[in-house]
Amino acid sequence: IADVSPIGDFDLAAVYVSDAQYNRNIFFDTTPQAIRLYLLYNHWGLQILVYAFILVDLALAIFEDPAVVPLPIWVTSVIELVCLAAFTARLVHYAKVIPRERFWKDPKNICIFAIILLSLVDMIIYGALKASGFYAVRWSRVLRPLLLVNITEGRQLRRAFRSIRNALPQILYVFLLFMFSVLMFSLMALKLFGKRGLKTIEGRPYFTNYLEIVFDLYVLVTTANSPDIMMPAYNFSVYFAVFFITYILINTYIFMSVFLAVVYNNYKKYLKEEVRKLVRAKRHKMVRAFGVLQERKGEEEPVVSQACWNQLVRLVQPDISNAHRELLWSVSDDNNKGCIGKVAFVQLADLLNIQVIMMKSRPHPLKTWLPSLYLSSPSRLVCRMVQHKAFMYTYDLIILVNAVFIGLDEEDPLIANVEWAFLVLYLLEILLKLYSFEPRAFFSRHQFWNCDLSKYNIQLNCPFLSILDIVFILRILRLIRVVDNIKRFRAIINTLIKIGPTILTFGQLIVVVYYIFAMVGMELFKGKIRFFEANSTDPDKAFCGNPLLKNSVFAKHNYCKNNFNNVVSSFILLLELTVVNQWHDILFKAWENTDIKMFFVLFHIVVVIIIINIFIAFVLEAFFVEYTVDQSNLQSSLEKKIEELELGLSACFLPGYKTVDGLLQRMFEADLDPEDFAEDEDFDPNNPSNLNFPNPNFDSV
Amino acid sequence: IADVSPIGDFDLAAVYVSDAQYNRNIFFDTTPQAIRLYLLYNHWGLQILVYAFILVDLALAIFEDPAVVPLPIWVTSVIELVCLAAFTARLVHYAKVIPRERFWKDPKNICIFAIILLSLVDMIIYGALKASGFYAVRWSRVLRPLLLVNITEGRQLRRAFRSIRNALPQILYVFLLFMFSVLMFSLMALKLFGKRGLKTIEGRPYFTNYLEIVFDLYVLVTTANSPDIMMPAYNFSVYFAVFFITYILINTYIFMSVFLAVVYNNYKKYLKEEVRKLVRAKRHKMVRAFGVLQERKGEEEPVVSQACWNQLVRLVQPDISNAHRELLWSVSDDNNKGCIGKVAFVQLADLLNIQVIMMKSRPHPLKTWLPSLYLSSPSRLVCRMVQHKAFMYTYDLIILVNAVFIGLDEEDPLIANVEWAFLVLYLLEILLKLYSFEPRAFFSRHQFWNCDLSKYNIQLNCPFLSILDIVFILRILRLIRVVDNIKRFRAIINTLIKIGPTILTFGQLIVVVYYIFAMVGMELFKGKIRFFEANSTDPDKAFCGNPLLKNSVFAKHNYCKNNFNNVVSSFILLLELTVVNQWHDILFKAWENTDIKMFFVLFHIVVVIIIINIFIAFVLEAFFVEYTVDQSNLQSSLEKKIEELELGLSACFLPGYKTVDGLLQRMFEADLDPEDFAEDEDFDPNNPSNLNFPNPNFDSV
Repeated sequence: IADVSPIGDFDLAAVYVSDAQYNRNIFFDTTPQAIRLYLLYNHWGLQILVYAFILVDLALAIFEDPAVVPLPIWVTSVIELVCLAAFTARLVHYAKVIPRERFWKDPKNICIFAIILLSLVDMIIYGALKASGFYAVRWSRVLRPLLLVNITEGRQLRRAFRSIRNALPQILYVFLLFMFSVLMFSLMALKLFGKRGLKTIEGRPYFTNYLEIVFDLYVLVTTANSPDIMMPAYNFSVYFAVFFITYILINTYIFMSVFLAVVYNNYKKYLKEEVRKLVRAKRHKMVRAFGVLQERKGEEEPVVSQACWNQLVRLVQPDISNAHRELLWSVSDDNNKGCIGKVAFVQLADLLNIQVIMMKSRPHPLKTWLPSLYLSSPSRLVCRMVQHKAFMYTYDLIILVNAVFIGLDEEDPLIANVEWAFLVLYLLEILLKLYSFEPRAFFSRHQFWNCDLSKYNIQLNCPFLSILDIVFILRILRLIRVVDNIKRFRAIINTLIKIGPTILTFGQLIVVVYYIFAMVGMELFKGKIRFFEANSTDPDKAFCGNPLLKNSVFAKHNYCKNNFNNVVSSFILLLELTVVNQWHDILFKAWENTDIKMFFVLFHIVVVIIIINIFIAFVLEAFFVEYTVDQSNLQSSLEKKIEELELGLSACFLPGYKTVDGLLQRMFEADLDPEDFAEDEDFDPNNPSNLNFPNPNFDSV
Repeated sequence: IADVSPIGDFDLAAVYVSDAQYNRNIFFDTTPQAIRLYLLYNHWGLQILVYAFILVDLALAIFEDPAVVPLPIWVTSVIELVCLAAFTARLVHYAKVIPRERFWKDPKNICIFAIILLSLVDMIIYGALKASGFYAVRWSRVLRPLLLVNITEGRQLRRAFRSIRNALPQILYVFLLFMFSVLMFSLMALKLFGKRGLKTIEGRPYFTNYLEIVFDLYVLVTTANSPDIMMPAYNFSVYFAVFFITYILINTYIFMSVFLAVVYNNYKKYLKEEVRKLVRAKRHKMVRAFGVLQERKGEEEPVVSQACWNQLVRLVQPDISNAHRELLWSVSDDNNKGCIGKVAFVQLADLLNIQVIMMKSRPHPLKTWLPSLYLSSPSRLVCRMVQHKAFMYTYDLIILVNAVFIGLDEEDPLIANVEWAFLVLYLLEILLKLYSFEPRAFFSRHQFWNCDLSKYNIQLNCPFLSILDIVFILRILRLIRVVDNIKRFRAIINTLIKIGPTILTFGQLIVVVYYIFAMVGMELFKGKIRFFEANSTDPDKAFCGNPLLKNSVFAKHNYCKNNFNNVVSSFILLLELTVVNQWHDILFKAWENTDIKMFFVLFHIVVVIIIINIFIAFVLEAFFVEYTVDQSNLQSSLEKKIEELELGLSACFLPGYKTVDGLLQRMFEADLDPEDFAEDEDFDPNNPSNLNFPNPNFDSV
């Protein structure tokens, strides 16, 4: 290691630090050429490009049959080929970066390779069949969302999938027990109600067919057909209500809670384990970077000098300000020795992840240009007034009053004029604030709450109704500012904002699952229900173009748009099924067959029982962390340093981490073994216990 | 303390130990007379009597107007007077047991006193008004369920109420934020959809009245009107679906999870605190008992001799067997010294709470009566066969086959005959088992799984259809035995059975809340909807006797029995509202006014947001404990001792605790400070931090 040229050393160390900062676990060759390729591979431009291609690939569903906007097959095929070419290029690039034998060991790469290959085969078969006039199915479309999981740097998404996979056996046992309970209750229901000759509201025999009872009682677990399913028996005798009450208590309340408990417990357990590994890997990478840069003076502990450290930080984060870098150094080198040891050096990755907005407290530009006017006593009074809390409260009140006016009828010309008065008041607020605060400070502080207002001003003149709608919504969003000023609420809102990015991970997870179900659903059920515009006079409109739906709840409730005729309505339909209510009415009446029941029960198990519960588990855990943990040690020492140094800059310090991994790490920080660091040299990726890492990270030192 | 007569000493010590065992926190006078009164107060007979009177008092709602079974006013009044007299007697008894000044400091007693007084006043007013022909309301009926909370030894119930009260401020903040979000979205909805002239399915204008929008969107949070509420906007334009998707994501998924998080977090925090206090109080009581009985030899540590200990245990638990008592002593006196110190003595309360079923492994009676026959080789073969696992599996299979036959049509005479064959097989099983196992061992081991079968045999000849129904259900319950034989499932079932008793606490909680809402609901809404029997030809049947309900969903779905006309249907209606689905349809269409909306929104907040979430929190916590904690130390040492001693008895050891407090204590055992014991002498009930104990327990030593 010591014989590499110094420049190469810094590059290598910078790559290690950057990998540690962003928790990348890719084992790359350490030759200068490979490092350059690796840096290119990690370039944000290329990563965005990959995401863009995936987005285009997924969006093809909008243009393919059954399409929202139909395009000829050759157009979509060419676009898909371009996307596949891009994915292949990305895969080849990755293969160049890491050693050959490691490339084929990683199931992720094999998965991407297989998807590309299968998509090509499917396109050829589909094209050939279509050309010869046969019926053909584009079955490889269900594979597309898997690219989102495998090709991107979406570690969170992969982790979510792994935690689902790990929880599956436990969920399965509870599910079997749950299904056993449903089957048993169905048997009881058959015996209790089957021979009484009761009728449902629709006039069909009540609880006479075992399989139908099983399905009805399964739907009752989701509460979607309560109390309808109970009414015939309850109307017959009040005692039969006991059966349904027992059923709901056991299967809806207890079993659903047990599902949540099992999912939550597994989620916590495996997540903790993964984050522990992640932290160890991060520390290991930092130790490697330290090993590259260390200087050893005689018998002393090896250290890294400030000059060396500065150069490294500049390489890792070129846009870092000098003040920020000096602040980080002073936190690391607490005793002003001019050099830092391993323990302090390893912190660097975490330090870089803490978001600090540095601002020199500059004088107001008017103060420099027109000092006599700006410093005059009326001008000072205005500044003091604007900076007073009463000013804020006044505007909170104005916003509230404005909200009331928004709620009132706008037909009245007086109210419409009042709207303009409010606009003037808001403009006045901005001007006054710009006058009394230094502009940069103003914009960085009010970034979020003013953006809506600025849009308001720009877009109010826009004639389109839809943009005016957005403006109305944005105006109403200003109300959040009022709530945010109350301390108790701010704590809750801050937590909600912090878990926002991770909700995006779940969003991706949902998109993957929805996409697969939408593709299958479209192939199975497209065109069976038709939606007619409101002004249509087609006689088929009364039953959504499907004679089976004559006089059905589905048609009466105007559900015709809930269909699988294109990818957008499929997604909205699946969302309605996730919300669960009326799901048994949404489609089963249209296809009185068992296939569609199985399709939806499967969807319910995957989305409602597993994914929604994992989502709830995440929100629960995030809130517990927010309630119990205040700040990490590193953050507090950074804050202390800022106060100590009085750097002549007002640091707008954003508590919290930039990355989701940061939040996760903080979640389990209390449980992490502090001795992990001392032992990290023993970290052995070839150890079988690490096998569930999809990417073995390092070879042994 | 040393000068009291020995008999009095043992009584006092026994009372302390018994209080510690059952976690009673009553500060009683220590005079022999007061102790005797206190023992009487704690007598199980009196406690059951109190519960019986409460039950009768609550059940009066069945006979009072609006009644299920109408009784004259004077009958119900006399019964209520008797109940009130019983409660007064109980209160006076309690007042005799504890010092006067403590009696009036306890809000519980004041509460009971006020309830009795108010009930009497209400009865007098009601009687007078009725006698003079005026309209009168029995408003004191809403107070009745509070007796269940205050007069009984229902510590769990009071604790659940306290944990709700403690969580309220936090819940309130989240609720305000949640309502703010609903109000904001309603404002947006008004602006987006109000002027488009859309119509709901019923032909009313869509989203034009702000308050109606707020209510509709509140109902959407419960998912009860999904997707109906979205359809008009979605049919108009697909982009409007985004509004509803955002709304559901934020308010249904995120906010409801946050409610669970807040409730769960508070529940855990306060429960831990309360259980900690409970354990300290228990140890303190045991130390007091030790102080009464201790013998000090010179400078040595004070001890309690075995003779003394034996006498104490016999007093505390007269029905304990000698073998069991010797076992407990050998666990306490691990080194066979003949006396035990304070630390070992304090364990006694917990030891007594561990359920051990002791059975001498006696020879089979046939072996003693007919040894030659019973020990012959064919007889031995039968015994070995029955004890083999294959025998169990064979019968599991038989039960499954029987389940299939139950599911089949019983009209077929062949199948009816097959049923008799199964009955013969089950009888054979019992006879074979009785032959090969010692009868007492057989019955204790198969207590649960055979009881249904024995009922089956007795009741099959019973001509009533309803009993036959029960028999069918019991037969199906035998299927549980099959599942219970699979280890993975048994773990889950055991946990479910263990949390059973605490679910009863939540059951009481629900009854209290339901009762109050039912009383109010009956006064407000009784008689507005009428239910007609199936064979009725009354023309009003089509709209439940309420012209407002003509052509309503309510009447069409045969919901007429969902009314407040008597206490039973009120309870079932409230249960349906708890399940949430269709709740907006169940009653609002019948009374198009805001009062009933407020009534149900309040019910939703109290039951669904608070109580159901606390229930889920409890199930979650119980499952986590089951997954992580295996056995308490005390249990393992008891098990070890049983193995060590080879007492010549097969102890059927039931893991788990008899009491709910035991489970709770185990839940937080890991977090309890082990030093608590050393400091327990300092336990000061007059400390302000103990004020949220309703009963201050002890004066300072």
